[in-house]
Amino acid sequence: MIGRLNHVAIAVPDLQAAAAQYADVLGARVGAPQDEPEHGVTVVFIELPNTKIELLYPLGENSPIRGFLDRNPSGGIHHICYEVDDINAARDRLGAQGARVLGDGEPRIGAHGKPVLFLHPKDFNGTLIELEQV
Amino acid sequence: MIGRLNHVAIAVPDLQAAAAQYADVLGARVGAPQDEPEHGVTVVFIELPNTKIELLYPLGENSPIRGFLDRNPSGGIHHICYEVDDINAARDRLGAQGARVLGDGEPRIGAHGKPVLFLHPKDFNGTLIELEQV
Repeated sequence: MIGRLNHVAIAVPDLQAAAAQYADVLGARVGAPQDEPEHGVTVVFIELPNTKIELLYPLGENSPIRGFLDRNPSGGIHHICYEVDDINAARDRLGAQGARVLGDGEPRIGAHGKPVLFLHPKDFNGTLIELEQV
Repeated sequence: MIGRLNHVAIAVPDLQAAAAQYADVLGARVGAPQDEPEHGVTVVFIELPNTKIELLYPLGENSPIRGFLDRNPSGGIHHICYEVDDINAARDRLGAQGARVLGDGEPRIGAHGKPVLFLHPKDFNGTLIELEQV
């Protein structure tokens, strides 16, 4: 079912510093910050040859990563995203296996404008997994 | 400097259950468990089209992931590994920028038989980063 690793998302306490560090210390290809007000984050993409790193910083009052940064003030890996061909088939397969999908269990439109699901980290080795239909 | 994302390593409290879950629930291509006594872990590789997930489970008394699992009983993402062409050049660049390398600061042979460095998570957004020369 799962295909490529689409991205690894890292929540950071200082977006400008983290982006500069990836560019200057790690020598990576770093994009410009992009506000995503509908998702409550500002994102910087790190383009690696085979996948992406997404640096996440809270945007607005109800950012979904605010609590994570409160618990992890230095930042940390927030989630990993696997690609799937068919998000509804993924939802059905997960449901049949008893894996919990966050929210109401239905796909919603994610930060890349594509349908996504998030799986409950307690069911997946403490790892928040996003599935994105590509 | 950094190239491909070589792998994401996830420490898991039950290796057999985690491997079965990746195979059966997530439908991924899952390898057989491999003991790596020199590194204190048993590893299961999940082969994705563009990178790997490594499920890590403690092996022996002094496993480097035992403490992580004590702090995170459900498991969690332990580190991410970026590829570099020249580990000594990476070490020198990091040192010149004041980034801390774990241990004595010198490359050692990692779990894949190649030279690696680990960077201090406090310097990198709470993320343990491995650099591996490929």
